[in-house]
Amino acid sequence: MSSPVLDAVGHERERLARVALNLLFEPGDKRLDGFLAGMDASALFAALHEPPADTAVSEAQADVAARLDALRPDQVLDDALRSGVRFVIPGDAEWPAQIESLAGIEPVQDRAGAPLGLWVRGPLRLGELERSVAVVGSRSATTYGVEAAGEIAAGVAAERFVVVSGGAIGIDAASHRGALAVSGRTVAVLACGADRFYPIENTRLLEAIVDTGAIVSELPPGLPVTRMRFLGRNRLIAALTRGTVLVQAAPRSGALNTANWTTKLNRQLMCVPGPISEVTSLGVMEQVRLGRGVIVTRGEEVLELVARPGEYLVEDRHGPARPRDHLTTRHRQVLDGVPLGRGASAVSIARASGVAVATVASALLHLERAGLVERVPEGWMLAPDAARS
Amino acid sequence: MSSPVLDAVGHERERLARVALNLLFEPGDKRLDGFLAGMDASALFAALHEPPADTAVSEAQADVAARLDALRPDQVLDDALRSGVRFVIPGDAEWPAQIESLAGIEPVQDRAGAPLGLWVRGPLRLGELERSVAVVGSRSATTYGVEAAGEIAAGVAAERFVVVSGGAIGIDAASHRGALAVSGRTVAVLACGADRFYPIENTRLLEAIVDTGAIVSELPPGLPVTRMRFLGRNRLIAALTRGTVLVQAAPRSGALNTANWTTKLNRQLMCVPGPISEVTSLGVMEQVRLGRGVIVTRGEEVLELVARPGEYLVEDRHGPARPRDHLTTRHRQVLDGVPLGRGASAVSIARASGVAVATVASALLHLERAGLVERVPEGWMLAPDAARS
Repeated sequence: MSSPVLDAVGHERERLARVALNLLFEPGDKRLDGFLAGMDASALFAALHEPPADTAVSEAQADVAARLDALRPDQVLDDALRSGVRFVIPGDAEWPAQIESLAGIEPVQDRAGAPLGLWVRGPLRLGELERSVAVVGSRSATTYGVEAAGEIAAGVAAERFVVVSGGAIGIDAASHRGALAVSGRTVAVLACGADRFYPIENTRLLEAIVDTGAIVSELPPGLPVTRMRFLGRNRLIAALTRGTVLVQAAPRSGALNTANWTTKLNRQLMCVPGPISEVTSLGVMEQVRLGRGVIVTRGEEVLELVARPGEYLVEDRHGPARPRDHLTTRHRQVLDGVPLGRGASAVSIARASGVAVATVASALLHLERAGLVERVPEGWMLAPDAARS
Repeated sequence: MSSPVLDAVGHERERLARVALNLLFEPGDKRLDGFLAGMDASALFAALHEPPADTAVSEAQADVAARLDALRPDQVLDDALRSGVRFVIPGDAEWPAQIESLAGIEPVQDRAGAPLGLWVRGPLRLGELERSVAVVGSRSATTYGVEAAGEIAAGVAAERFVVVSGGAIGIDAASHRGALAVSGRTVAVLACGADRFYPIENTRLLEAIVDTGAIVSELPPGLPVTRMRFLGRNRLIAALTRGTVLVQAAPRSGALNTANWTTKLNRQLMCVPGPISEVTSLGVMEQVRLGRGVIVTRGEEVLELVARPGEYLVEDRHGPARPRDHLTTRHRQVLDGVPLGRGASAVSIARASGVAVATVASALLHLERAGLVERVPEGWMLAPDAARS
């Protein structure tokens, strides 16, 4: 028999167990994904204290044994809350359910699985990420890339989509700034504890993000970044959002790891083109060439791909209309026969355009009304507007 | 009963009739496509002298009546040959049969149909266009576009594919030059007579093309360019080649007309990306976005798409290999726990990496052999190479 109170107690017990496991295992440890497919976190945590059931658990036990007794998950949770960091787990109102699509997916660079929970710092509720887009790219960004990322992030954020990125220098920072510049909301998913500002160059930016959006991390507070943590973090960026915009990435860029996760999760991968002369374009364009990502050149195009069908429809690009657009073929053919800067007779225009004189005569009257040709003493010549267009 | 001699006479009669029709009708006049579906050029030319059979022929007769009697196709052909321009028609050994795929295709901007013949100036035989690629783009090219077009054209021409373009300033000229720079072959398809060098800025370039490749035109010698002739010319560039590489094109660029023809003819449209901040990228990227063209960033990628299947296979882009690429997850996890610039004990590394001490000890030995970690008095630290990579 269940009661709201007992349910709440059970939920908080599960939260503490998840904190404990979070302290014991690296984020994205693929073994956790397997363990948690069969039992809840409380049961798994208990199992780690018992004689090993199988080889997999035994190896995990060896990794964690030395740290098991000293664990104080309640203390870690309290300290976190005091520094403004909450630990959001499945079952919480703001839990972003879309992230659970990570469960059971094959590892990418050995990271896998849904997170045990997310450490969050800032007023934004994770439920708002239901309408979010990731904008990521190289730390070695060029001026072009920084501008492109900022412009696209601003376009997306202005339509109240949350811009998610990794808080790094380069494209990530430009994306966050683009969102903030239009008073939009943005979330930085970090590869260190959510209480930290990393990298230090982005401290002011991350402070601004915490004020109106959120810093999110899978790592307990206090922990520093490592290479593998970046890889684990990237899968969260892909899984939290409806799609990922990739702005600049050389062929080995870490941003391609996020792109891989995006396509693995059947989310939309969107690629911003850049010059083929810059190495940061090549990793991005390769994704398009291989059919993994589609081209986007502006925020509206991103929204068209990730919003509800029909919510944003992009008009095809077209240049300014020109007077000659509305002419028939014959009239255009006659117009092509009218000289510029000197007059010509209808007979001469007929010869130049290969159209019968009678047709030319009526065509010239039409073209005159359209302001495309003018009468002069010698016959007809192009009007200045027609000559320019 | 047919004889080789009679066949040859008939073929030359057909050539003269095609010259005559070529003098009477604008290239790409869609009526010709219809007429020639039902009769040969000799029969059509004869029909123009007779009382009209139907309204379509009657209108055509009105257009050409005034010029019919003064026609001297034999004279035009002789003059052309004397100036080094030959008129190639279906049935000639060098006739590029692929161009006949234009017959019966719906008009694009009112131009349609296979050409009556092609005026050719230069040593290249049109049969060689069986292995050719068009590289086209805006006249308002940027330095970036000029370099990109030149590089891709050179890559294609170096593999003995003929580079076809329109001889214009900007991207076209860069494409021709790219081919010539690697002693490749290139063909300029012009919208004026093949005896002319247009535009005048490209005179030297067109002279070089005539020396080793060819200038090709659908227009009789002596005729100047008009707007409609550019549109007619574009369909030839698309139809002569296996595919079109589009380098720079603003949303209203004429190069998009060539791109339209390319996809209409089911040829491969290939798009070179560029910065979204330049208007010349947007028309190109729109083609990719709408699923009409694919991204290419180098000559090999073009060849992979247009050469025989399997003849050119492009390796995926990848950055330089790094020592850590070949490590197992556990070894990488341990490596992530080894500090930079100071030593740490195996126990401390085990704690930092979340891996059991016994595993850490064996992992460190492996990492030392791989040159990634070094022994120091306090324990272990990252080797300089590992720290950099």
